[in-house]
Amino acid sequence: MNRKYEEYRSLMQKISDVSYANALLSWDQEVSMPPKGAAARARQSATLSGITHDLFTGEKTGTLLEELSGDKTLSFSEARNVAETYKSYKKAKKYSTDFVITLSKTISESFEAWNRAKKENNFSIFAPLLEKIIKLKREEAGILGYTEHPYDALLDQFEPEAKTKDVERIFEDVKKELVPFVKEIATHPQPEQGIMFMHYPRQKQWDLGIELLKQMGYDFEAGRQDISTHPFTTNFGALDVRVTTRINEHDLGEMLWSCIHEGGHALYEQGLNNGDYGLPSSESISLGIHESQSRLWENNVGRSLPYWKANFPRLQQIFPENLGKASAEDFYKAMNTVKPSLIRTSADELTYHFHILIRFELEKALIEGSLEVKDLTSAWNKKYKEYLGVDVPSDSKGVLQDIHWSHGLIGYFPTYSLGSFYAAQFYSKASADIPGLEDQISKGQLKPLLGWLRENIHQHGKLYSSEEISKRITGEKLNFKYFLRYAKNKYAALYNLKAETEKTS
Amino acid sequence: MNRKYEEYRSLMQKISDVSYANALLSWDQEVSMPPKGAAARARQSATLSGITHDLFTGEKTGTLLEELSGDKTLSFSEARNVAETYKSYKKAKKYSTDFVITLSKTISESFEAWNRAKKENNFSIFAPLLEKIIKLKREEAGILGYTEHPYDALLDQFEPEAKTKDVERIFEDVKKELVPFVKEIATHPQPEQGIMFMHYPRQKQWDLGIELLKQMGYDFEAGRQDISTHPFTTNFGALDVRVTTRINEHDLGEMLWSCIHEGGHALYEQGLNNGDYGLPSSESISLGIHESQSRLWENNVGRSLPYWKANFPRLQQIFPENLGKASAEDFYKAMNTVKPSLIRTSADELTYHFHILIRFELEKALIEGSLEVKDLTSAWNKKYKEYLGVDVPSDSKGVLQDIHWSHGLIGYFPTYSLGSFYAAQFYSKASADIPGLEDQISKGQLKPLLGWLRENIHQHGKLYSSEEISKRITGEKLNFKYFLRYAKNKYAALYNLKAETEKTS
Repeated sequence: MNRKYEEYRSLMQKISDVSYANALLSWDQEVSMPPKGAAARARQSATLSGITHDLFTGEKTGTLLEELSGDKTLSFSEARNVAETYKSYKKAKKYSTDFVITLSKTISESFEAWNRAKKENNFSIFAPLLEKIIKLKREEAGILGYTEHPYDALLDQFEPEAKTKDVERIFEDVKKELVPFVKEIATHPQPEQGIMFMHYPRQKQWDLGIELLKQMGYDFEAGRQDISTHPFTTNFGALDVRVTTRINEHDLGEMLWSCIHEGGHALYEQGLNNGDYGLPSSESISLGIHESQSRLWENNVGRSLPYWKANFPRLQQIFPENLGKASAEDFYKAMNTVKPSLIRTSADELTYHFHILIRFELEKALIEGSLEVKDLTSAWNKKYKEYLGVDVPSDSKGVLQDIHWSHGLIGYFPTYSLGSFYAAQFYSKASADIPGLEDQISKGQLKPLLGWLRENIHQHGKLYSSEEISKRITGEKLNFKYFLRYAKNKYAALYNLKAETEKTS
Repeated sequence: MNRKYEEYRSLMQKISDVSYANALLSWDQEVSMPPKGAAARARQSATLSGITHDLFTGEKTGTLLEELSGDKTLSFSEARNVAETYKSYKKAKKYSTDFVITLSKTISESFEAWNRAKKENNFSIFAPLLEKIIKLKREEAGILGYTEHPYDALLDQFEPEAKTKDVERIFEDVKKELVPFVKEIATHPQPEQGIMFMHYPRQKQWDLGIELLKQMGYDFEAGRQDISTHPFTTNFGALDVRVTTRINEHDLGEMLWSCIHEGGHALYEQGLNNGDYGLPSSESISLGIHESQSRLWENNVGRSLPYWKANFPRLQQIFPENLGKASAEDFYKAMNTVKPSLIRTSADELTYHFHILIRFELEKALIEGSLEVKDLTSAWNKKYKEYLGVDVPSDSKGVLQDIHWSHGLIGYFPTYSLGSFYAAQFYSKASADIPGLEDQISKGQLKPLLGWLRENIHQHGKLYSSEEISKRITGEKLNFKYFLRYAKNKYAALYNLKAETEKTS
């Protein structure tokens, strides 16, 4: 037993105790809290954040990490944990208390302003606050440091080690390949979608969602599902991982994609190494890898024909009036229509990435100073016309639609696309590794896939970076071609674009 | 603005933030947590307790309190807050870390042993741990200090300033007056109880409970109700006060008394001074006074004829099959049968106090050393025969029935009886102060009573002690005669014991 390492572990566990408690405060706020509890909850959460920060940046932490990072007797995983924590520690130490307070206050005001601006459909209410946010985020990039592009420093907070130029390269492919492909799709007739929008009673949807989660392998002894306005996954260790969903009685897809998507996030958390509670090796790698798990289940599995071959008969049992006369194929087609639209969160799995591309280009321009907030709306609307071919009718449905910027989240959006692209790359390898994967899925046997994800990704926590895990699994770093191939194969078949179909490897 | 006082307030608020967060961890554990989350939750809760303790017993707290307690410029409530906090601080400082850890470990083991002992109906599994608990509690009495009886020090933790000899005096009256009264009742025929035990569907009971809470004035914007095995009330400030209930489809009383009882606790918390968040003036006085609020609503209101004159017609609407042919009087009689029984938590409102009396006598004897744990079971069984006239068939239904001792709670039980007796005393004064109180209640108008409680009790928090608040309101300290008069009037009428009826003042 290395006593210093045990001291380090015990300190990390204590810090996690407090931050998981804080995560419960947030979960409760979204799921259970009565409205008048908000003010005290904000205090309580801020106090716990302060305690976590003080513990993490305290002298004791620094001394321990310095000593341990020179210790040659540590095992691979021990050394990796120490290195990961030391990196985070050094980052956290760069911030002055003044900066943290200013940013936190600006975010509070900004969130209020965004809320009001969206309600009143008036970007000018939010603009001055967004200007402040951008200014502070440029300052933050300077504080954190970067060599090539200030956006690198911001991106790194959500997708460690990812560089702006890599994301640019990937989005060049999106523009070159995916944009014309979607234009091609648009010239073909749309499948019948009505089946998704019939009346699906709430309780039956709820029960179905629970069934689907169980089938995926989500452990309800180590989690639970609730209802919230915006579905999310949270956890307080790997043995208490909670998901939320939403139900729209006139759009079955809202519940389906919420449950399967959040289920994918939750399976990742439930698969982390609980024995390393508090250490990086028990934590997810990055937002991009997290999203790869949710998207893999949502898109590669949940929007596939084999999945519905397994599950559609059950849906027919539950909703005989709506689905009695339809086939799994009808259902599969209805849920996979591609159509450019205004709102990111309800976009299909192809045009979704155009929404991210637009946000990435705008964020980068704002941070490097080539775009000013006053010109943001017109830039936004122009890009929506260019990439999606749609006219933006209002600020609320345009530049104000997402909460992220008001929360100071700049550099976050790209991880959504990176996640989908990683998902395709991992899924392609899983298909090669697992004999008869599609066949298993079409029988509702999802455990082999989960086992593969557990073994290759979940169990390692942060012991490998995104790029390392990608190379370990697929032999190469993130490559857009897997997603493109998945998209072309699937949608060429769905829209009868025979010439476009590529061979799967 | 007194800067030192503001520093003190801010420190107390910070401590409350952490302890309210900890209270949320507990609430969640009872209401929402999946089973596998227990181990991490125990860690998280212990860490927050440690942080609270460190903050509270820190040097900064001591210095501030010492300075402020000599400050003559403080207002009455400021000085009172400082004095209350200083008292708690001095108590907390008396404990050595060793003692706290030993007690906490013993309680954990003890709780496990009690659980197993109860399941296996075998006191000897629990006995060695209970011996340890008693030894530690004697030690704790020594640590805290006392002048007359070691039990004083333990009682004081739950009912500050109450003395063993006062409780003894009150229970002498219970023995002298209530025991023979219950014997007299036993010679008379029992009312028909069957109406309480018909089939009452779960959802309808739930909806009814919510209605009754709203009628009492419970604010659902500042609270919520959930289901738990053991009903309880908790809060995270005065604007988030949560209750739980339980529902037995074959015993309507379980839900009714849970809802009204916990509702009474919750109204107290919702009526505390939220502006003083973190300070003693925003906290309840004692367990006894807390229980006075729950018992007042449960017994003096909820088990009264006027209350059911107001609410029985609604019950008939909801449960026409069960209640269509009954009257409010039938229902009132059925819920107010007095009959000695084995289990405290399901006892009627008179024999309940014999259960407490027994526990008080045994606890006192254990602490002063006149009874040993090895003789506890026979002492228990003998007292049940003596005071309640019942034979105890098993340890599980006898000495093992309650969780309290396994949790190290010695000195806690008496507060249940004190609460009922305070309730009768306060209610008697409320009846005198509020014109036509019974008439209002029989119309379902409960707001005037709540207003009286808010004004006389809730708003003051800990600014007055139990005895002071009792004197302020009723002109005297706790006096058993009010409860006795309430009991005799009510039950003499119910059981046709005409000679026993006393005049109300």
